[in-house]
Amino acid sequence: MSTDIRINRGLKGIYFERSEISDIDGAAGELSYRGYSIHDLAEHSTFEEVAYLLIHGQLPTAPELTAFEAALKSARTLPQAIYDIIAATKDGHPMDVLRTAVSALAALEPDSRDTSEAGFIANGLRLTSQIPMIVAAHQQIRNGRDPVAADMDLGHAANWLWMLKGERPSDDAARLADVDFILHAEHGSNASSFTARVTVGTEANLHAAVTTALATLSGPAHGGAAEDVMKMVEEIGSPENAAAYVKAKRANREPVTGFGHRVYRAEDPRARHMREGVRKLGEEMGDPRWFQILQAVVEAMQPYARHGLNVNVDFYAGAVYQLHGIPMDLYVPIFAIGRVPGWTIQCIEQLRGNILIRPLTLYTGAADRVYVPMDDR
Amino acid sequence: MSTDIRINRGLKGIYFERSEISDIDGAAGELSYRGYSIHDLAEHSTFEEVAYLLIHGQLPTAPELTAFEAALKSARTLPQAIYDIIAATKDGHPMDVLRTAVSALAALEPDSRDTSEAGFIANGLRLTSQIPMIVAAHQQIRNGRDPVAADMDLGHAANWLWMLKGERPSDDAARLADVDFILHAEHGSNASSFTARVTVGTEANLHAAVTTALATLSGPAHGGAAEDVMKMVEEIGSPENAAAYVKAKRANREPVTGFGHRVYRAEDPRARHMREGVRKLGEEMGDPRWFQILQAVVEAMQPYARHGLNVNVDFYAGAVYQLHGIPMDLYVPIFAIGRVPGWTIQCIEQLRGNILIRPLTLYTGAADRVYVPMDDR
Repeated sequence: MSTDIRINRGLKGIYFERSEISDIDGAAGELSYRGYSIHDLAEHSTFEEVAYLLIHGQLPTAPELTAFEAALKSARTLPQAIYDIIAATKDGHPMDVLRTAVSALAALEPDSRDTSEAGFIANGLRLTSQIPMIVAAHQQIRNGRDPVAADMDLGHAANWLWMLKGERPSDDAARLADVDFILHAEHGSNASSFTARVTVGTEANLHAAVTTALATLSGPAHGGAAEDVMKMVEEIGSPENAAAYVKAKRANREPVTGFGHRVYRAEDPRARHMREGVRKLGEEMGDPRWFQILQAVVEAMQPYARHGLNVNVDFYAGAVYQLHGIPMDLYVPIFAIGRVPGWTIQCIEQLRGNILIRPLTLYTGAADRVYVPMDDR
Repeated sequence: MSTDIRINRGLKGIYFERSEISDIDGAAGELSYRGYSIHDLAEHSTFEEVAYLLIHGQLPTAPELTAFEAALKSARTLPQAIYDIIAATKDGHPMDVLRTAVSALAALEPDSRDTSEAGFIANGLRLTSQIPMIVAAHQQIRNGRDPVAADMDLGHAANWLWMLKGERPSDDAARLADVDFILHAEHGSNASSFTARVTVGTEANLHAAVTTALATLSGPAHGGAAEDVMKMVEEIGSPENAAAYVKAKRANREPVTGFGHRVYRAEDPRARHMREGVRKLGEEMGDPRWFQILQAVVEAMQPYARHGLNVNVDFYAGAVYQLHGIPMDLYVPIFAIGRVPGWTIQCIEQLRGNILIRPLTLYTGAADRVYVPMDDR
C-alpha cells in the first residue's frame, strides 16, 4: 500500500464536472439559477417559470410559459396501480411511499425507458406534476379519505395545497408554497443530485435517477433539517429559553440544528425569503410564537456567525409548514416536490457528456490470507 | 471563475475513502475479499460463507456458519403487500419491479428505520434472503403462476433456482449459481456501492441505500453487460463469423461488449470461473455453441489484449444464464442477488466513519443576468 495516496474524505473540495445550471458562492452567500439571482426569482417568478428556466436555460416568453404550464397540467395523472401501491404502504414514512411510487412509475410507464435528452425532458416534466400528486394522495389515503382530483384552474403550488387538504388555499398561502418550491428547485451537486448523476452515469433512465435522489434526500443530514428545527423549537418552548438552550448545546459541542451548511459560510441566501414568510404568516394567523423562538435562537447564535454558523434555508421552512398545519413527516417530501426540476436538469447535463462516475477506495485491510478449510478452523 | 481548478471527470483515480473490504489489483488482474483470493473462495466456499466473511471480516467456524445459514433461512418471508405490488407492476422490467419492492419493504417493515450498525447487519441479512424471493416471485407471477414457497432444506443458491423455476435444480446447476453469486458479492467502490455510500452519508437507512444501489445497477453500463454479450452472441450466430464481427467493430471504433473494465487492465479474475462453467454446462447439455462463439470472439480480440481489452466477468455470465433457460431481463437482477452482502458491508463501513459525500461542480454558465419582467421579454 502506497502511503502517499491522498484520501479526499467526503469528496470535499473535489470538482467532478463543469455545470451551467446553478452557481453557489458560499463565502458571499449568493445563489443563482442560470445566472439569475435567487432573490429576483423568489420575488418575481413562479415555480413553473423557474422550472422552465432551469430546464431550458432561458426565462420563457409568455407563449412559452403558457405552453409549459399546459404541459405540466396535462401530466397531472397517475395510473390506478400507483394509488393501490400508496394504499398498500400507507403506514410508512411519506418519503418511503413517495420513492416506492416513483420507482413503480418506471415499471408502469413504458416511456420511462427513453434515455434520450428529449425523453429525460418529457419524463422530468411528468414527474414534476406526479410527485406532488403522490405526496398529496398519500396524505389523504392515510387519513382515510379519497385522493383529491387535481384542479386544472390552479397553478402548481396552489393545486398541490388543494390536493393535500381538499380546500382552496388563500393566495398568500399558495404564494408562500410557490416561493418555497422556487427556493428548493436546484442547488448544485448536493448529495441527492450527485447520486442521481452517478445513476445516469451508468446509462440508467431518469426514473431510476430520481428514485436514487429520493433515497438520498431521505437522510436526516440532507433533507431532514426542517423537521429537526421544529423539534428543537418545540423543545425550547418559548423565546426566553433560547439562550440557555444554545449555551448548553455549544458547551456539549453539539450542533444547533438549522445552522451551518457544507457550502455556505455566510447566511444561506434562501433563508431570508422563508424568514419573511414565517414572520408574516405568524402575524396573520395570530401565532407569532414560532417566529419569536426562531429569532431568539438566531440571536443566541450570533457570536458563532463569524465562524460560518449562519441559518440555512431549513431553519425557517419548518415553521412555515407548521403554521400551515402540515405534519412534520411531509417536510422532506415538500423539499422533493420543489427539487424535481433541479434533479431533471442535473441528469440531462450528465447525459450530455456522460461518463461512468466511479471513484476509488484505498484498501487497508488484511492481505494474502490463506484459505483454511472448514474442518481446520 | 478560476481556470486552474482541476476537474476530475468520472472521479477517475480519486480516492474518497479507505476500505477494509475488498482489494482489486487491476494491473495484475487480482481480486480478494477480506484478504482471501477470489479463486479460493470461488473454488472452496459457499455464498453463505462468503456473505459471512464480507460482513464479519473472518471466515466462519462451523457453528457460526450454521447459525448464519439459519438466520438467512428464517428471513425467507415477504409481507403479502409485496406480492401485491409485484403483481401490480408485473409487466415492468424486473429491475424496476425489484427496486420498487425493496423500496416498499422500507415502508412495510418498521425495523428498516434502525440506522445502528446492528440494524444495518439485521436489515442486510433480511434483504439478502428477500431479494432473490422478489426476483423469483416476479418471474412466476408474470408467467401467470403462483410464487413458489421457499424450501428450507435448500441453501441460498439452490433455493433461488427452486423458487424461480418450481423444480429442484441439479447439484451442478445449484453450484454454478452459488459460484456466480460469490463472484458478484463485492467489488469495491463500483457505481452502485458508491451511490449506496453517498445515500448512507446523509444518514439514510439501509433500505434507502440498497434502493439507490439497485437504481444505479440498472444502468446498462453497470449491470447490463451480460445481457449485451448474449445479444452480441446471437448476432454473431456461429463461431466462424466472430473474426469478421470483431474486425468491423474495431474498424468503426465501437467497443466489443464484455471486454474492458474501468479497473482491470489484465483479465478480470472472475471471468475464468464462469468460463469453466459455460464450457462444462454447454458440454453436459449438448449445446457447446455458445461457448464456441464466445471463445472465437476472445481469439479475435487477442491482438487488443495488451491494450487492456480483456474479458470481464459479464462476458461468460450471460451464457450460463442462457443455458439455464433464464430470460435476459433477469441477468441484472441475478447480479443484484449476489451483490447484497457487498452493498451491506460497504454501507456499514460508511456508517462507521460517516461523512456527507458531496463533491463540487465548477460553474461555467451565464453570470449576473438581469431579470426581465414577463411583459418586456
